[in-house]
Amino acid sequence: MRIGVLTGGSDCPGLNAALRAIVRKGVQEHGDTFTGFLDGWAGVLDDRTVPLDIPAVRGTLPRGGTILGSSRTDPLAGTGGAGRVKAALAAHELDALIVLGGVNTLTAAARLVDEEGLPCVGVPKTIDNDIQGTDYTIGFDTAVTVATETIDRLHTTAESHKRVLVVEVMGRCSGWIAIHAGLAGGANCVLIPERPFDLDRVCEYVESRFRASYAPIVVVSDSAVPAKGEVDLKGLSGVGEWLGREIERRTGHEARTTVLGHIQRGGTPTPNDRWLATRFGLHAVDAVHDGDWGAMVALHGTDIVRVPLREAVSGTRTVDAARYAENEIFFG
Amino acid sequence: MRIGVLTGGSDCPGLNAALRAIVRKGVQEHGDTFTGFLDGWAGVLDDRTVPLDIPAVRGTLPRGGTILGSSRTDPLAGTGGAGRVKAALAAHELDALIVLGGVNTLTAAARLVDEEGLPCVGVPKTIDNDIQGTDYTIGFDTAVTVATETIDRLHTTAESHKRVLVVEVMGRCSGWIAIHAGLAGGANCVLIPERPFDLDRVCEYVESRFRASYAPIVVVSDSAVPAKGEVDLKGLSGVGEWLGREIERRTGHEARTTVLGHIQRGGTPTPNDRWLATRFGLHAVDAVHDGDWGAMVALHGTDIVRVPLREAVSGTRTVDAARYAENEIFFG
Amino acid sequence: MRIGVLTGGSDCPGLNAALRAIVRKGVQEHGDTFTGFLDGWAGVLDDRTVPLDIPAVRGTLPRGGTILGSSRTDPLAGTGGAGRVKAALAAHELDALIVLGGVNTLTAAARLVDEEGLPCVGVPKTIDNDIQGTDYTIGFDTAVTVATETIDRLHTTAESHKRVLVVEVMGRCSGWIAIHAGLAGGANCVLIPERPFDLDRVCEYVESRFRASYAPIVVVSDSAVPAKGEVDLKGLSGVGEWLGREIERRTGHEARTTVLGHIQRGGTPTPNDRWLATRFGLHAVDAVHDGDWGAMVALHGTDIVRVPLREAVSGTRTVDAARYAENEIFFG
Amino acid sequence: MRIGVLTGGSDCPGLNAALRAIVRKGVQEHGDTFTGFLDGWAGVLDDRTVPLDIPAVRGTLPRGGTILGSSRTDPLAGTGGAGRVKAALAAHELDALIVLGGVNTLTAAARLVDEEGLPCVGVPKTIDNDIQGTDYTIGFDTAVTVATETIDRLHTTAESHKRVLVVEVMGRCSGWIAIHAGLAGGANCVLIPERPFDLDRVCEYVESRFRASYAPIVVVSDSAVPAKGEVDLKGLSGVGEWLGREIERRTGHEARTTVLGHIQRGGTPTPNDRWLATRFGLHAVDAVHDGDWGAMVALHGTDIVRVPLREAVSGTRTVDAARYAENEIFFG
Repeated sequence: MRIGVLTGGSDCPGLNAALRAIVRKGVQEHGDTFTGFLDGWAGVLDDRTVPLDIPAVRGTLPRGGTILGSSRTDPLAGTGGAGRVKAALAAHELDALIVLGGVNTLTAAARLVDEEGLPCVGVPKTIDNDIQGTDYTIGFDTAVTVATETIDRLHTTAESHKRVLVVEVMGRCSGWIAIHAGLAGGANCVLIPERPFDLDRVCEYVESRFRASYAPIVVVSDSAVPAKGEVDLKGLSGVGEWLGREIERRTGHEARTTVLGHIQRGGTPTPNDRWLATRFGLHAVDAVHDGDWGAMVALHGTDIVRVPLREAVSGTRTVDAARYAENEIFFG
Repeated sequence: MRIGVLTGGSDCPGLNAALRAIVRKGVQEHGDTFTGFLDGWAGVLDDRTVPLDIPAVRGTLPRGGTILGSSRTDPLAGTGGAGRVKAALAAHELDALIVLGGVNTLTAAARLVDEEGLPCVGVPKTIDNDIQGTDYTIGFDTAVTVATETIDRLHTTAESHKRVLVVEVMGRCSGWIAIHAGLAGGANCVLIPERPFDLDRVCEYVESRFRASYAPIVVVSDSAVPAKGEVDLKGLSGVGEWLGREIERRTGHEARTTVLGHIQRGGTPTPNDRWLATRFGLHAVDAVHDGDWGAMVALHGTDIVRVPLREAVSGTRTVDAARYAENEIFFG
Repeated sequence: MRIGVLTGGSDCPGLNAALRAIVRKGVQEHGDTFTGFLDGWAGVLDDRTVPLDIPAVRGTLPRGGTILGSSRTDPLAGTGGAGRVKAALAAHELDALIVLGGVNTLTAAARLVDEEGLPCVGVPKTIDNDIQGTDYTIGFDTAVTVATETIDRLHTTAESHKRVLVVEVMGRCSGWIAIHAGLAGGANCVLIPERPFDLDRVCEYVESRFRASYAPIVVVSDSAVPAKGEVDLKGLSGVGEWLGREIERRTGHEARTTVLGHIQRGGTPTPNDRWLATRFGLHAVDAVHDGDWGAMVALHGTDIVRVPLREAVSGTRTVDAARYAENEIFFG
Repeated sequence: MRIGVLTGGSDCPGLNAALRAIVRKGVQEHGDTFTGFLDGWAGVLDDRTVPLDIPAVRGTLPRGGTILGSSRTDPLAGTGGAGRVKAALAAHELDALIVLGGVNTLTAAARLVDEEGLPCVGVPKTIDNDIQGTDYTIGFDTAVTVATETIDRLHTTAESHKRVLVVEVMGRCSGWIAIHAGLAGGANCVLIPERPFDLDRVCEYVESRFRASYAPIVVVSDSAVPAKGEVDLKGLSGVGEWLGREIERRTGHEARTTVLGHIQRGGTPTPNDRWLATRFGLHAVDAVHDGDWGAMVALHGTDIVRVPLREAVSGTRTVDAARYAENEIFFG
């Protein structure tokens, strides 16, 4: 078969591992040929491609980012987008398109399957881990690992100076990185967007930690918000900085904020992410050869399964109350 | 409640994280008191204990090993063992015993529940990941991570000298570490005990890799065996060294063996292992308060559930053919 | 002898390693007893102490921060400070005081020796590496390692999105972390306080890197300033954020800023820092037993030597033009 | 100028960083062209080369090993070797040859300069750090870091099982890796080739550590030997395994041996090694343009200087008694 591949949305570690697995399996088992579209959907619209063969993916397993480049372009945002996608597939005589992306990138794929009958298969990737239908997404384990290593480092400086350290982690609409890294890093409070926070209570945790003669670490998703009152972020880098200032103002304890930012999405993937990405890649090729258009590969336990793309993108996977409560036992 | 705790079998990263979670949840939510038995079942038989309270577990989340010590003592190996276990529980007026261990340690717990009616709850831990009924066990992710980082390092030296590098990893009766680290590390051949290997074929992979102008990495479980012929390990450190010599003898390519050994079970747990161990600990306390004797906490997908200890220890969880085949696509 | 010890200024990795070496050497070789002052000079002024014996320092070699706590208190800032220091030494019948600190902390020690005749010995520590008379200070190697690992991670995300990534590192008055991490991390431009930067030239490097089809990484010390014009940091987290915005505005390329902040000073010290800190600690005890008051231990090549504290703190060690020029070959 | 480059001896992390610096500086500052000889001196004798330009070295800074390959071939071992080296230089019209290697590789270079008048400049690299005239060699810091991280991991398993853990590190004729990693890793005994060890005393350290309720770590160079008696290594992997067995036999404490092997020389270089290798590379190009044949670049403190190759290879740099004594304070 002739198969197109693209990586869309924000980059994350593991994309190259998935591309490598796709190409090795397709070429070696089926004699497929692959065309890589550059910079996500943008490369489809503009017909910018690169041939993807085994030499092209050699040595990429441990490399972060994506050799195809990425973008946030939505092919269906303007008029005529669907037609241009069709034209690109036709121009390269492609029998299928494997789309690696987060919710937005996969939503476009789902619509192209449902509305235009295009032969797409999806692979879920995002450090935010907010895609429905799969236990985990490519990139999440690496992001959690980076965030946890950072929290590990900050403990000693918090203790030495008896300071509050606020760590702002990523999570556009979900608190997965925050609760995983918060639990693994031994944070004394974790704030997530799913659960607007009570600033008084945060300050109580801070005070209680100091009373036990320790210094507190507060982990906050960059999309977390307080339950009441407004957050004026003007002139601030984000909610983490705001929170640090408020805690300092209210408790009188010195507070410092660290914003992890892009470190969370760069660099070599963890062994776990390489394993997940590789297996997703292998199974995506199976789905293509089964003609299972509209399927997304997904992790259920230790199995790779397929779920409908349209269901996976119908909403955002968020942290439920029970999971959050597990973290709360360690607050304060 | 008054609860005893022990850690048995080989040590692994994450045990302290589990102990910390058990104590924090029990003390804070239920007002439980905890007695730690030293050195696994040995400490129960000899009545060597230490009080486990919140200060005792502070700061232990990132620390490998176990603050309780461990041993491979089987309490039911001699006569009168069951009686001594009962006596120890009675002496400390314990209402329950939480047992963290691998197959052997948990088998004793299962028998004590079934045969003696003792109030035990199990927590599965082993870097080998060979316990049935759970997706993963405490310590496995760390072992895979250490092994993968080692393979990453060896690639460059293999390339620079055009040598075969054989990496022997742990896995008493299962190839889990080998296939995970082999896949994540980009090994060119992975040999596991579940599947006796064909030495001719291994040599073919080695030759094929050299023909592509690359140097091969062979990952082998320390319990892997050839399909035909005997392995005479006399004077050798293990199957890895034997394999290196055989490959060198047959292919004429220089080969070197690295035996990972105890590095795989030591040191700080990965964020993933801390998360799993912490959640296992929290849910073990729930099982105790539910009086769910004979239950083992287990991971199913992203949920912590309970499975019967007796079923979990009724056999060994091994790598099946389909999973192994996923790795084979990358051989050679 | 009876010896007091304090750690002052910002915390850094390696302080505990130094304390451990001081105590082990003093106790084992000389039968010394040690008194630890809490929170730097503050603990001397307020007479807050903790006994430092071998059990107190066990297991601290790999731990970041300082078990004594730290502060930026200047004992000579108010009136009567010198008297209170003397009184504290007298109260504990101390024969000597070992002071671990950066320029400010050591300046106080130098003055107390010169003006008051107090028996002080200094040990240089600061992630900034800006103390004269020694090749390196405790904490610097760890800070450079953390910064380099971060830059390594950011390369892949820069490439995937064709973005400029600005990394702001610490360096209050010197560019040591920036030039070391910039060189080791393969940065395409490094800006340091010793050399006010030309924004046009920075933008040229950025453009030139993009013309070669790569994405640029710009490393900037948090105290770097442009050669002409004012930097209005109002509402910005620092010069890094300002620089990112300016580059984006001028070149039209998307830019993102990562501020490393406190990660650079926390966590386990590198083997190099443990080695340096341990050796500094051992040699500081020698200086005490030699009665070499006013000496600071220092690294010259692979030797630990002594230099006068007063000379070490007479200015700041900065990056000279030749060293900076070595980095410039890799710009653009 | 037209410049040849080769990397000889065992591979080590940082060689690529040095090659990259050589090429970037030569091409950008002087318009030099570079010819890379493959597999060390072997490629010179057989005239196997690859062009080295800026694209060839892009992205290699963090990569271990050497893109040129390496070998232990001695060009002067057979007859006519010097003539073949001359012929290769003539064939490629080379004005100079930069030789990166350890003692053996550089000895050949020194002789070719002295005996044949060839225009060679040397760059010292070896994880063993045993080259005279320089504070450190390329690769050493990475080897120490890997060894220390391993010792860190082994502490927890030693404690959990109350076992002796023996760690065998590399060091063909010197104990540099052993004493650096032993000190940084908190080993309870370090054995080096410079100082034949007393097995009784080693066992005393082991016993004394157990008496203090801790488990001992013994670090041993693979070339260390006992002061009296013979070591029969038949059927053993090396002195580490022998030592583990002897300690177990004599003290009755269980002992395990871990042989680090090739892990120490593979993988990404530390920031420190990248910095050293890069600076060595830059200064080697200066030496070439100065026509300073027979010079070896070297680190003195924080400066890169030049020393005569012939002196550097006139012997082996070993650990002196005073340095070893610093470690002894931590034994037992």
